[in-house]
Amino acid sequence: MDEMKPLTVNELAELVGGRVLGDGNVSITRVASLEAASEGEIAYVEDEKFFAAAKSSRASCLIVPHQFESLVLSKQNSAETTEVETEHALPLPTRSATLIEIERPKLAFAHIAELLHPPKRREPLIHLTAVMAPTADLALTVFVGPQVCIGENTRIGAGTRIEAGVIIGDNVTVGLDCVLHPGVVLYDGVTLGDRVILHAGVCIGADGFGYVRDDMGYHKFPQIGTVTIEGDVELGAYTCVDRAALGRTRIGRGTKIDNLVQVGHNVDIGERVVIASQTGISGSTVIEDDAVIGGQVGFGDHARVQSGAIIGSKAGILPGKIVRPGVWWGVPVQPLDEYKRRNALVGRLPQMREEIKELRKRLEELEDHLKGKT
Amino acid sequence: MDEMKPLTVNELAELVGGRVLGDGNVSITRVASLEAASEGEIAYVEDEKFFAAAKSSRASCLIVPHQFESLVLSKQNSAETTEVETEHALPLPTRSATLIEIERPKLAFAHIAELLHPPKRREPLIHLTAVMAPTADLALTVFVGPQVCIGENTRIGAGTRIEAGVIIGDNVTVGLDCVLHPGVVLYDGVTLGDRVILHAGVCIGADGFGYVRDDMGYHKFPQIGTVTIEGDVELGAYTCVDRAALGRTRIGRGTKIDNLVQVGHNVDIGERVVIASQTGISGSTVIEDDAVIGGQVGFGDHARVQSGAIIGSKAGILPGKIVRPGVWWGVPVQPLDEYKRRNALVGRLPQMREEIKELRKRLEELEDHLKGKT
Amino acid sequence: MDEMKPLTVNELAELVGGRVLGDGNVSITRVASLEAASEGEIAYVEDEKFFAAAKSSRASCLIVPHQFESLVLSKQNSAETTEVETEHALPLPTRSATLIEIERPKLAFAHIAELLHPPKRREPLIHLTAVMAPTADLALTVFVGPQVCIGENTRIGAGTRIEAGVIIGDNVTVGLDCVLHPGVVLYDGVTLGDRVILHAGVCIGADGFGYVRDDMGYHKFPQIGTVTIEGDVELGAYTCVDRAALGRTRIGRGTKIDNLVQVGHNVDIGERVVIASQTGISGSTVIEDDAVIGGQVGFGDHARVQSGAIIGSKAGILPGKIVRPGVWWGVPVQPLDEYKRRNALVGRLPQMREEIKELRKRLEELEDHLKGKT
Repeated sequence: MDEMKPLTVNELAELVGGRVLGDGNVSITRVASLEAASEGEIAYVEDEKFFAAAKSSRASCLIVPHQFESLVLSKQNSAETTEVETEHALPLPTRSATLIEIERPKLAFAHIAELLHPPKRREPLIHLTAVMAPTADLALTVFVGPQVCIGENTRIGAGTRIEAGVIIGDNVTVGLDCVLHPGVVLYDGVTLGDRVILHAGVCIGADGFGYVRDDMGYHKFPQIGTVTIEGDVELGAYTCVDRAALGRTRIGRGTKIDNLVQVGHNVDIGERVVIASQTGISGSTVIEDDAVIGGQVGFGDHARVQSGAIIGSKAGILPGKIVRPGVWWGVPVQPLDEYKRRNALVGRLPQMREEIKELRKRLEELEDHLKGKT
Repeated sequence: MDEMKPLTVNELAELVGGRVLGDGNVSITRVASLEAASEGEIAYVEDEKFFAAAKSSRASCLIVPHQFESLVLSKQNSAETTEVETEHALPLPTRSATLIEIERPKLAFAHIAELLHPPKRREPLIHLTAVMAPTADLALTVFVGPQVCIGENTRIGAGTRIEAGVIIGDNVTVGLDCVLHPGVVLYDGVTLGDRVILHAGVCIGADGFGYVRDDMGYHKFPQIGTVTIEGDVELGAYTCVDRAALGRTRIGRGTKIDNLVQVGHNVDIGERVVIASQTGISGSTVIEDDAVIGGQVGFGDHARVQSGAIIGSKAGILPGKIVRPGVWWGVPVQPLDEYKRRNALVGRLPQMREEIKELRKRLEELEDHLKGKT
Repeated sequence: MDEMKPLTVNELAELVGGRVLGDGNVSITRVASLEAASEGEIAYVEDEKFFAAAKSSRASCLIVPHQFESLVLSKQNSAETTEVETEHALPLPTRSATLIEIERPKLAFAHIAELLHPPKRREPLIHLTAVMAPTADLALTVFVGPQVCIGENTRIGAGTRIEAGVIIGDNVTVGLDCVLHPGVVLYDGVTLGDRVILHAGVCIGADGFGYVRDDMGYHKFPQIGTVTIEGDVELGAYTCVDRAALGRTRIGRGTKIDNLVQVGHNVDIGERVVIASQTGISGSTVIEDDAVIGGQVGFGDHARVQSGAIIGSKAGILPGKIVRPGVWWGVPVQPLDEYKRRNALVGRLPQMREEIKELRKRLEELEDHLKGKT
């Protein structure tokens, strides 16, 4: 989050491939939200719902979709010619922001933010309070912060930043340009790919939860497998990825996981999967590429989520269940449409009860009527 | 939890504004529960349900509500005059406890406990294993424990206690008389007010969970905002408060949050809010002053909980939902009364099914009867 | 997870009391799964479902149940005599694995794994970066890793291994042969029995979540009790066990708890209890011996789970609820059978609605018919 020297709107537009409308020489130093943005800042609007807010934003530059011009600017132009209608038109900005017109403003905004607010850089250093095993093998450009411990035969790739208090066991491999935030714990033998970001306290490689019971109590089932975290993965604070019993637990390339998530032993998560906070995944479950999982979801063991599945927050997936492509919801998990229908029917139960009562009454009247006749 | 020199019941009663019944010169050294209390200890009883237990408590002093005397002591007194009835009266304590009579015994007990068991004090110190950036600015009375790291331009207020292994980034502000328990992590740029208590491993300011997808995968949406924790807030172990994407995440004055809670980016929590363990709050949700939230509750993004709302454990709040004052329950969240009614109706489904069967049978009989006639 | 010198199948069979079929002099160095096992490795099969996989395993030794021989080997033998049938028989392994026949193969496998892959050993040591209070009392054979802090009057038993970054308060007692993984936090005054394993970041003894409200806001209810963790307990990463308000929180002998579990103040968990990940237990709840609790379960306060109860994942137990022996499920928790029945009935709601419609229609026809008549 260090600040860069300012860039002009023209430079930013070129970076993302957008079209400049207005003064392209305006200097931009920071990204900001529509509401908070002020001079020297760039904001974006993508949803038509916020077009009015965009118009009143004090940002020096707005990244906008193609419709923006036709919907908003045309009104403004027409307002200039037809004084009568101005009251109903969208409010004019106090001063005119330069626009960058582009198909996906939010994506462009993310790219521009990366440029204006690059991740913190640290000069290569091994802090003198760090404790390094003699056989640890660190690239020259690594940053190792205070109170870090690195174990035997562990290798750390170039450009990686290891913040204060991180503890790395023996025989660990960390790739290039990773960021390990304070307090991360890597148990022995785990592997991280390149550009992996682990937030505070992420724990990789603790024993999976497996026991065998006899008359005396529980005996540990061996937890001697490993964990592989592939490239471009980001894991949130205190997320835990347990080592495999035998074999390995895997998180695939480009997958993003939020805080306080539990990934059990032998779980296999594919590429570009997204998992929100506090979800728990039991042993040996498979989540295929590009799945999207909400928060506080619970997976039984040996389940499988197929590529293209989207699972809503708080859903519960039974052991062994296969979740096919589509949107899923509820406990136990079911297609969203079905969930909604069931939920609506449960909401109509009082009415169903009344209907049954009414039918009973009418039936009784008929019966009485007929009895009276015979 | 250091111990104080003993105080007399008279002194304690004066502190809380209660009325002493019995020997006010009795010395009290500790608070205790009704069951475990013994000589030199003070306990309390508030609920009539526990009056009998209070009578048989071995505490030297009991804090009691006004009804206690009339309900329990009058029986005791009458028992003294009418021998015959003693068998049915509440058991007499083996020795008579002094009483402090007061409107809210539990509250008085909490105040007295604060006096008898003040929080641990540490002499001002910067431990020689602590790593301090040269530009960090610490008040003279700060305690900094072993293995602590404090970053550039960070300011720590007077009387604050920073326990072992705490890691504080750059440009952080910590107020007066805070307690940061072992392993707390404060990312760059966050702000704590006065008298904030953070339990072990609390993580403030990790990146919020926001990405923009394109054909290649996920790109980080900028997470460059900050976090403000106001005064008198207490956060439980491993609770995470993410930094805002843009703008700030806020926890208001006097709010208390339990362990393992997730507070997403841009969330705004008001004053005197209570949130129990393992609850998760998605981005941009607002929780107004004085709300009470149970454990394992899940909030979608952009929801709003109004002041006066009470949300039961395990509830699920959909994105954008407004939760009005009252008691709420269930997934999706609904007023408690409605939840109970629905739940009762679901419980009556087998019966409804039987009723439908019965109506069908009777209807068929009628139909047959009429067919026979024609 | 250090490796041992290899043992022969005969030696392993003797250890677990199994019967060797085949060459008992084969050397075994590692345990492995059926699929991954190769030369020098031992695998197990217990479930008939996997007998075919076992036959094609490349393990040097298989631990098998008694039925295995009769079901699989007999087919193999008969195949040797009757050439015609071989095509339908189970595939022959590429080379013949030695078998250890035993009643409970998985249990034997666990015992053998313990022998072949003993837990990491550390030579006794107090790392020079560790910070020890002068009154701390450590047995001679203790390992204390880098950056560890140990407080006043704390006692650590023989053979205990304290990994990097562990922080232990004052007046703590840790038993014999415990393993405290990196980043564990023990608050003042807590007690661990022998052979306790605490994974990364386990937090024992943080304040319970208890407050008393007055007009000004919330006051801390005293949290001055303690925590006792009995022998042979294992707790997963970032699991929190809060100290009692008054009295103590307890986890009984041989209990195993997964990652990210919350145990509230004054909770009493019995012996040989199993609790899966992300479950939360509110204050003063009692879980009796041998209970089995799934993941993401939530317990209200003052509930009681009786010995012999099994509670499915994501269940919700109301405050004060008594859960009797049997299998339980759902929110609020109910016997599994009942839960299934209710769930099935809810699934049949669309049909019930149709039936009511149909009855109404037939009833109307009858009514019309009779009206026409009169």
